[in-house]
Amino acid sequence: MVESVIKTAVVGGTGYTGVELLRLLAMHPAVDLAMVTSRSEAGVVISDLFQNLRGHVDLKFTPPDIEQLALCDVVIFATPNGVAMTQAEFLLEAGVRVIDLAADFRLSDAGQWQHWYGMTHACPGLLKEAIYGLPELNRERIRGARLIANPGCYPTAVQLGFLPLLEQGLVSTENLIADAKSGVSGAGRKASIDFLLAEVSESLQAYAVDGHRHLPEITQGLVQVSATPVALTFVPHLAPMIRGIHATLYATLIDEDVDLQPLYEQRYAEEPFVDVLPAGSHPATRSVKGANVCRIAVHRPQGGKVVVILSVIDNLVKGAAGQAIQNLNIMFGLDEQAGLKEIALLP
Amino acid sequence: MVESVIKTAVVGGTGYTGVELLRLLAMHPAVDLAMVTSRSEAGVVISDLFQNLRGHVDLKFTPPDIEQLALCDVVIFATPNGVAMTQAEFLLEAGVRVIDLAADFRLSDAGQWQHWYGMTHACPGLLKEAIYGLPELNRERIRGARLIANPGCYPTAVQLGFLPLLEQGLVSTENLIADAKSGVSGAGRKASIDFLLAEVSESLQAYAVDGHRHLPEITQGLVQVSATPVALTFVPHLAPMIRGIHATLYATLIDEDVDLQPLYEQRYAEEPFVDVLPAGSHPATRSVKGANVCRIAVHRPQGGKVVVILSVIDNLVKGAAGQAIQNLNIMFGLDEQAGLKEIALLP
Amino acid sequence: MVESVIKTAVVGGTGYTGVELLRLLAMHPAVDLAMVTSRSEAGVVISDLFQNLRGHVDLKFTPPDIEQLALCDVVIFATPNGVAMTQAEFLLEAGVRVIDLAADFRLSDAGQWQHWYGMTHACPGLLKEAIYGLPELNRERIRGARLIANPGCYPTAVQLGFLPLLEQGLVSTENLIADAKSGVSGAGRKASIDFLLAEVSESLQAYAVDGHRHLPEITQGLVQVSATPVALTFVPHLAPMIRGIHATLYATLIDEDVDLQPLYEQRYAEEPFVDVLPAGSHPATRSVKGANVCRIAVHRPQGGKVVVILSVIDNLVKGAAGQAIQNLNIMFGLDEQAGLKEIALLP
Amino acid sequence: MVESVIKTAVVGGTGYTGVELLRLLAMHPAVDLAMVTSRSEAGVVISDLFQNLRGHVDLKFTPPDIEQLALCDVVIFATPNGVAMTQAEFLLEAGVRVIDLAADFRLSDAGQWQHWYGMTHACPGLLKEAIYGLPELNRERIRGARLIANPGCYPTAVQLGFLPLLEQGLVSTENLIADAKSGVSGAGRKASIDFLLAEVSESLQAYAVDGHRHLPEITQGLVQVSATPVALTFVPHLAPMIRGIHATLYATLIDEDVDLQPLYEQRYAEEPFVDVLPAGSHPATRSVKGANVCRIAVHRPQGGKVVVILSVIDNLVKGAAGQAIQNLNIMFGLDEQAGLKEIALLP
Repeated sequence: MVESVIKTAVVGGTGYTGVELLRLLAMHPAVDLAMVTSRSEAGVVISDLFQNLRGHVDLKFTPPDIEQLALCDVVIFATPNGVAMTQAEFLLEAGVRVIDLAADFRLSDAGQWQHWYGMTHACPGLLKEAIYGLPELNRERIRGARLIANPGCYPTAVQLGFLPLLEQGLVSTENLIADAKSGVSGAGRKASIDFLLAEVSESLQAYAVDGHRHLPEITQGLVQVSATPVALTFVPHLAPMIRGIHATLYATLIDEDVDLQPLYEQRYAEEPFVDVLPAGSHPATRSVKGANVCRIAVHRPQGGKVVVILSVIDNLVKGAAGQAIQNLNIMFGLDEQAGLKEIALLP
Repeated sequence: MVESVIKTAVVGGTGYTGVELLRLLAMHPAVDLAMVTSRSEAGVVISDLFQNLRGHVDLKFTPPDIEQLALCDVVIFATPNGVAMTQAEFLLEAGVRVIDLAADFRLSDAGQWQHWYGMTHACPGLLKEAIYGLPELNRERIRGARLIANPGCYPTAVQLGFLPLLEQGLVSTENLIADAKSGVSGAGRKASIDFLLAEVSESLQAYAVDGHRHLPEITQGLVQVSATPVALTFVPHLAPMIRGIHATLYATLIDEDVDLQPLYEQRYAEEPFVDVLPAGSHPATRSVKGANVCRIAVHRPQGGKVVVILSVIDNLVKGAAGQAIQNLNIMFGLDEQAGLKEIALLP
Repeated sequence: MVESVIKTAVVGGTGYTGVELLRLLAMHPAVDLAMVTSRSEAGVVISDLFQNLRGHVDLKFTPPDIEQLALCDVVIFATPNGVAMTQAEFLLEAGVRVIDLAADFRLSDAGQWQHWYGMTHACPGLLKEAIYGLPELNRERIRGARLIANPGCYPTAVQLGFLPLLEQGLVSTENLIADAKSGVSGAGRKASIDFLLAEVSESLQAYAVDGHRHLPEITQGLVQVSATPVALTFVPHLAPMIRGIHATLYATLIDEDVDLQPLYEQRYAEEPFVDVLPAGSHPATRSVKGANVCRIAVHRPQGGKVVVILSVIDNLVKGAAGQAIQNLNIMFGLDEQAGLKEIALLP
Repeated sequence: MVESVIKTAVVGGTGYTGVELLRLLAMHPAVDLAMVTSRSEAGVVISDLFQNLRGHVDLKFTPPDIEQLALCDVVIFATPNGVAMTQAEFLLEAGVRVIDLAADFRLSDAGQWQHWYGMTHACPGLLKEAIYGLPELNRERIRGARLIANPGCYPTAVQLGFLPLLEQGLVSTENLIADAKSGVSGAGRKASIDFLLAEVSESLQAYAVDGHRHLPEITQGLVQVSATPVALTFVPHLAPMIRGIHATLYATLIDEDVDLQPLYEQRYAEEPFVDVLPAGSHPATRSVKGANVCRIAVHRPQGGKVVVILSVIDNLVKGAAGQAIQNLNIMFGLDEQAGLKEIALLP
């Protein structure tokens, strides 16, 4: 297996998706990690900040330099919302592929983006070109893409759970419910009282019930698949753990005479990173800790008309850095599983 | 404050509801903790088993002796399902009040009880007399009761959350959803691989999606209140924490022209142990840790027809031992808050 | 029990020792919580910040106003280091008692204080008057004190563990070791990356091995007791939990022919808040969660000359707020246990 | 990289060291996992028990069959103490290499083994042949070994920390102290109340202060290196986390005029799995989560005569399964790092 080496830069690798990206890239057989930029940490040895990378990543953070970035094959943005949109155009014109782990290119409608993110979009013209990087939905379009909007963590778990039902038009789209629980790493690595261990450990709570930024992203995806309007109630919760998302999805069958288990198994039979569990199963988030996989179980309590789908991912892997690498692999014609064969850490 | 002293016995105080009951009874100003029985731990100094009780409870566990129990004013069963039903009749005839923290008297229909609990009921005749000990629903009937079925933890959180909606007939009862998350103490204190820290920490999962014993209990309560059939989907989850239940409830309004916040505030205005939070709030389970209180918040995402109720309790207090003492206080004409004034431990 | 009511103010109640102090004061039978000041949170309803206090504390934070404070019987500072020392003099002159939970008055030597705390001391003249508020050591002096330096959390656990050995001169003071493990609440409630759940959960590490501010405080106390120089190695560790300190103490016996268990039991026989466990015990920090107690066990592995003392406290209670109230009770001639009878929360 | 394929069997893969071994073996480029035996789980699909292995290990547990085991190149025992010693002789005679993750061959003195493990040793004659599998100490002897006693978790962390000091005779061996903290997975995967999340989360405690089975194992190793008697006080603690050991080691310098940092760096310069941190560092256990590495920091508080060594490992990897594979690699002449290049999971 002699693969071309992909010269890769990471912009903003100081957060949790950043360090996870670095961990995965350092183990990727076809990636040359050329530079990692950070305005705040420039000059710092990366493995001084992230002790786990000692012996594996020997770069320093460098100041962002778009000319240097333009010499790479691909630039991955692990930055806050609003950064990638200011640099993507330049890089694309220089022939560089771009993957954004933030939300800049996830919504195709600039007005809606501005509503939810509270900023003017810097390059609305690119929104139409950007491909939403959910391989299970858009693999062919990712293959030829220059610009990938890497999906959010909740949207990945929720969409993979609902897809087979909506593609087949089996459930009412007037009242979908996604009750999602996330580990705290989803809140990012930033100075904050709200996510101190002493604040969030031994506790669980909902947040943003009245509107979370992932709602329009999920809805956009579900509408695309179902080709109908979709009314989704999305309630995220903060759970006292580091990693993991558990999405519990509720939908009402239009016709009760349907066998969902084989439907899900067939839909994902060829997908390397979606695992449909046997009937009656309950996936635990720990079963995907550190691994690029979504595990799904299908239930119909008491055999009724309500379908309950359980969908778990590691928010930092299939919900962020791992999915970015999956997209990179597809874009560059590599084995889709390259660098992503790690088994989840259990216990 | 001269109160009569209630001579109280606890049967089976070796589990988590047991130790919590002992902690609360030891601090209760009007309770004389006369004996604590345990078949397995008879002869053991209670505070050797539960180090926190050193200096506060100086009894030993004694072997169960129904003649001795019959000399008390009240016997509280903190036993597995199926124990209280074999002793309640004798005790009641001896003039003793009985509170069962297990499920023996929670369902009024013996057939249904036997279906869900897999045992023949030992005294189905008492099912009609037993009062379901949810004070916010049945306070007057509790006052005169001889036999209390203390509600389950999930049923307490779910019913208190749904009550105002169903009492007023505001939502469709054809598709109620209760997505509930519980700390691990709810699984009890018993030798088991499934609830080891190394199994359940840093993970979250649903369980019993196809049918949990609390489903018929909740449904029975909701039917009583709404006076209509109720179709409830109940999905419990195990969260990586010791204490706490967070119930996230979903219902669909029949008429959208209703203001729910004052409705909830008025419904619970006089309730000492139900706290309706201001509009827009998100109760955290830690806000009730160790305290006999249910905190509730009411939401209508995007102002739509779906109502989302957030309801949190400490499963061992308002969901078990604290509620039992609340019932005891009501039964014996004490201040309903006696022994229950402790403030939740935060952080 | 007709006690005088102590008009009490708290300065800076927005941290973890602050909220714990408010929780305990709100349940104290002889305290009138008159005001809680905070520069940063002035105007905020306290129970909006700390949901557990809803229904128990109905004050707002007020801006610090030393004239108002001077009308109280006692002012308790739950502020960062360096605040109390600027206000104590004025308050004392106004006849108000002062208890400082920070370190301003803990070291009797101003030069050493300035070395370890990196500030000039604002009122070195008060250092001689201030009483170090460890009741098990200084009860009589606390009784008449105007100004109490409430001990640090580590110093409380370590000193209570070493006291009986040093008072009797039984061990070499040339090589004492205190290996201490603390929950994360000890780091305080402040915006910080270092103490995010995602940073400190599922991990354990030492810190400040080369010198922690509690080292001179502990040493000062041990020197006072032993009347000899003391060489102590103190290594604190951060453990992935909210509350609790476990100090593991090592010392070498001068004469092996000594029976330590009765020595410890007798030393603390009359102490309401020190609990010497039976020989062979291992106290768990959870046994003191939320309670004002120090539990101690004494070991001599393989019957040798090395003594191992295990000493556990709740850092926020016996290590901070609870001890402050114990001091308040002593200063005002109240029952020393008033407001401190709560049993630790377990599990 | 054409390596020979090592036909490998695992006996007893149902515990935590077992599942970690399976995870690592499944990712090992030169290992053919031929069979996994379990008496209790025979017939069960392995990945039904350990969901993380779905898609990576497709074997079932099979009943132990020594004839089948004898057809393998190597048999790894991940069994309780006392199992490997009954089968090792047969396997060795059949030309199979044996690695025991339990304690059967760790102590060279059969009498001492029987004292600490409470069983008669089944094949004391093999104790002399067995090589203690700490590669940093015994690499050459491992290379030619037929039978490896894989070190315990605490002994690995403690010995790697003390080795450079004792090899050079720099510290007094009359009073060594090892204060060690372990995650709960070290207690194994077995039905037990003691290690339930609700028992051990949010708590920390010492255990076995009066004598832990790892004490003679550590002492044996230290004596071998120092060629003097060694008096070690070893106090293990249970910390509320899944994985990780933090050993805090204390020793007294004989001659204070020594520079320890370069000594440690040189001692481990060629070791692929020991990482000496820069002076002043504090290794966190999370920095080694899932990785086969020991990170060490060297301190002399206040520049005195007491040395404090901080040594962290993942108890299931460098403390068990990873070290076993490191030994396997050495025994079979493979790249010592084969299958062990995974980077620790952080956060």
